[in-house]
Amino acid sequence: MGKMPRMAQTNQRIDGKRLWDSLMGFAEIGATPKGGVRRLTLTDVDKRGRERFRTECEAMGLTVRVDAIGNMFARRAGRDPARLPVLFGSHLDSQPSGGKFDGALGVIAGMEVMRSLNDLGIVTDAPLELINWTDEEGSRFGHSLMGSGVWAGVFGLEKAYGLKDTDGVTVETALDEIGFRGPEPAVPFAADAYFELHIEQGPILEREGKQIGIVTGAQSQVWYDAVTIGQDSHAGTTPPSTRKDALVCAARIIDLVDRMMRARGEDGRGTVGQLLVAPNSRNVVPGEVRFSVEFRHPSDAEVAVLDAEFPPAAQAIADACGIKLELTTLFKIPAQPFDTSCVDLVRQGAAKLGYSTREIVSGAGHDAVYVARHIPTAMIFTPCKDGLSHNEAESIEPEEAEAGCQVLFEAVVARANRGL
Amino acid sequence: MGKMPRMAQTNQRIDGKRLWDSLMGFAEIGATPKGGVRRLTLTDVDKRGRERFRTECEAMGLTVRVDAIGNMFARRAGRDPARLPVLFGSHLDSQPSGGKFDGALGVIAGMEVMRSLNDLGIVTDAPLELINWTDEEGSRFGHSLMGSGVWAGVFGLEKAYGLKDTDGVTVETALDEIGFRGPEPAVPFAADAYFELHIEQGPILEREGKQIGIVTGAQSQVWYDAVTIGQDSHAGTTPPSTRKDALVCAARIIDLVDRMMRARGEDGRGTVGQLLVAPNSRNVVPGEVRFSVEFRHPSDAEVAVLDAEFPPAAQAIADACGIKLELTTLFKIPAQPFDTSCVDLVRQGAAKLGYSTREIVSGAGHDAVYVARHIPTAMIFTPCKDGLSHNEAESIEPEEAEAGCQVLFEAVVARANRGL
Repeated sequence: MGKMPRMAQTNQRIDGKRLWDSLMGFAEIGATPKGGVRRLTLTDVDKRGRERFRTECEAMGLTVRVDAIGNMFARRAGRDPARLPVLFGSHLDSQPSGGKFDGALGVIAGMEVMRSLNDLGIVTDAPLELINWTDEEGSRFGHSLMGSGVWAGVFGLEKAYGLKDTDGVTVETALDEIGFRGPEPAVPFAADAYFELHIEQGPILEREGKQIGIVTGAQSQVWYDAVTIGQDSHAGTTPPSTRKDALVCAARIIDLVDRMMRARGEDGRGTVGQLLVAPNSRNVVPGEVRFSVEFRHPSDAEVAVLDAEFPPAAQAIADACGIKLELTTLFKIPAQPFDTSCVDLVRQGAAKLGYSTREIVSGAGHDAVYVARHIPTAMIFTPCKDGLSHNEAESIEPEEAEAGCQVLFEAVVARANRGL
Repeated sequence: MGKMPRMAQTNQRIDGKRLWDSLMGFAEIGATPKGGVRRLTLTDVDKRGRERFRTECEAMGLTVRVDAIGNMFARRAGRDPARLPVLFGSHLDSQPSGGKFDGALGVIAGMEVMRSLNDLGIVTDAPLELINWTDEEGSRFGHSLMGSGVWAGVFGLEKAYGLKDTDGVTVETALDEIGFRGPEPAVPFAADAYFELHIEQGPILEREGKQIGIVTGAQSQVWYDAVTIGQDSHAGTTPPSTRKDALVCAARIIDLVDRMMRARGEDGRGTVGQLLVAPNSRNVVPGEVRFSVEFRHPSDAEVAVLDAEFPPAAQAIADACGIKLELTTLFKIPAQPFDTSCVDLVRQGAAKLGYSTREIVSGAGHDAVYVARHIPTAMIFTPCKDGLSHNEAESIEPEEAEAGCQVLFEAVVARANRGL
């Protein structure tokens, strides 16, 4: 045994213009006036994206399956029926005011990989499967990474089915309504590897002028819900000594989160992104503030320190303010290192093509993080303009998309043809 | 001349039970399930309150006039046709989730004063006028003290007519729809004095166990709108050095407001009551925060210092955060001292009845503050439970209402019968 991997030859190139045209074509599905995309999961708009994906995949000879949570798998046969498939993909759903590339790049670049293999007459040893994961964003039903999370067994199918949107529509009903509750069980079938191409959604590659991010893993995270509870009172009549201002207390905790982040240097993340004041009236001392707190860091040990130090430090602030603090841990996600051999294939593919690279730890959550619990996984990042994402102004250059797709092609083909 | 004022005799008492029954009766108009009142200005509910006020006043022999902004004046003739009227009153409109007593106490106690004068067969030298001011709260059209403000010439009738609620209905249309755009000009006619009984809306009287607050004037105020503008970005991917977190900056300004308030001791007021985060998403670094800032103090000089020091101190915080700050002064209201002779009548009335008292400066805005620009004015405060107001839980005891009403009776009768 021990054959050398047969990498793609340097004249085996994906078609950058076809890729870009396909990206722009999908961006018309749910296009917003400001140039973004609103393709909320399991809506009619998402259905149009899914049907286009199926139609185009079937037109190029792939076999499309759908599982019980709506994940779509488009399979290209390999030469060796005994080989496990090499998986790649991402998601076609978007944020409510999302961009054209978050998720879509990974799926549509995967279609370009399939098309290029057809054009080049390449049959890989292992079969290939391109995946469109359901509801990565979590914007409609409040639970991100739903399709990959159910598939990976992170949370149960029945629990996912019961989640409701703000109109009371369940995931199960929404799947049925668009006809994408499939017959396949949503479970981690045996596979050889998973690759996901995604925009960075941060500023690091752009700032350092790198074309490709070699993603070595995902950050460790801890998320909290916080409520500060004081007492509403008239802003004009309540003297300082009797005030119980929930917002002043929340403000000091926000400052604490920022200081704890900065104490970790450039790898630290600490954010209060969501905050609601009650009663939120100009001349009423706020009685209650609800806000989110999250910390992230590449190191589980650093997040453990943050998780040990933040609650008592926040409580000390609340005590000093005379305010009640309710702090609930929503979840902790350990750091997820990616598979060394898969990461190496990304590195080798980028090196072969002469792209500038940087190793990077994913700050965002991705379907790949859940898949990596079962299957050797790696990710490829491309830069995005000003690091912006989850924003209609999200933007990348055609050559950046092409570079990312070409590295995906290299990694997938190398893995599928590796000697066993 | 120089007759001594003929004060009410000690056996001239208002009827506390009748007052309380009347308060509870009006509280049924717009009653909420939680025991509060929702009687938004110029709505059908407000109309019912206004019609009940007119019907009851006319039943006790008063003549009711309505002016161009809907202010209602119920006049009781005096013995001397040459005397200017003594005015008293407050407002019947409420906050959206208001209580039974804010405003209503002053109007309904005024009705009890009129009824008691009838019962006791007293005709005062000067005529008396009981007033229900339009839209004190400002909750529907966004401009508090509207009726008294137009009357006092603080802002124009046409400007007030043009204000719209969130459904686009103008004040003028709303007045016409409920039939309360009256024929009288809304201008400060000649009058001898104005007295207003109101709940304190703060905790001071209750905390010190005082029955009556002798209000010596109203605080100086300065109000701002603030916006901090940074850049939305992904919470997981944006490193500390490139974050432009508008909420961290706002939090530090909130802390500044609190510290500047506390540096003034118990007389200082500084509040951020309203705050909105954009995009307000859990995993997005906030790009923009809009919030209110206000300072109040009995002394104009202290507010001038706050107004001189706060904007540059807030700007310094924004500069240190790398955030753009837009700070707009909404308005400044100078301190409004009340008339010494009117305040003395309140003091004497409370002393005669043996009530415990405390001098107090009003922290809230009241119609009396605008009336005081033209006419000698004083206010009487009664305690309220836990200092709560603008809240359905707003509460006072029947004996507290009775004490306030009795002092109003004493002050009004003494003023109307004073020697000239």
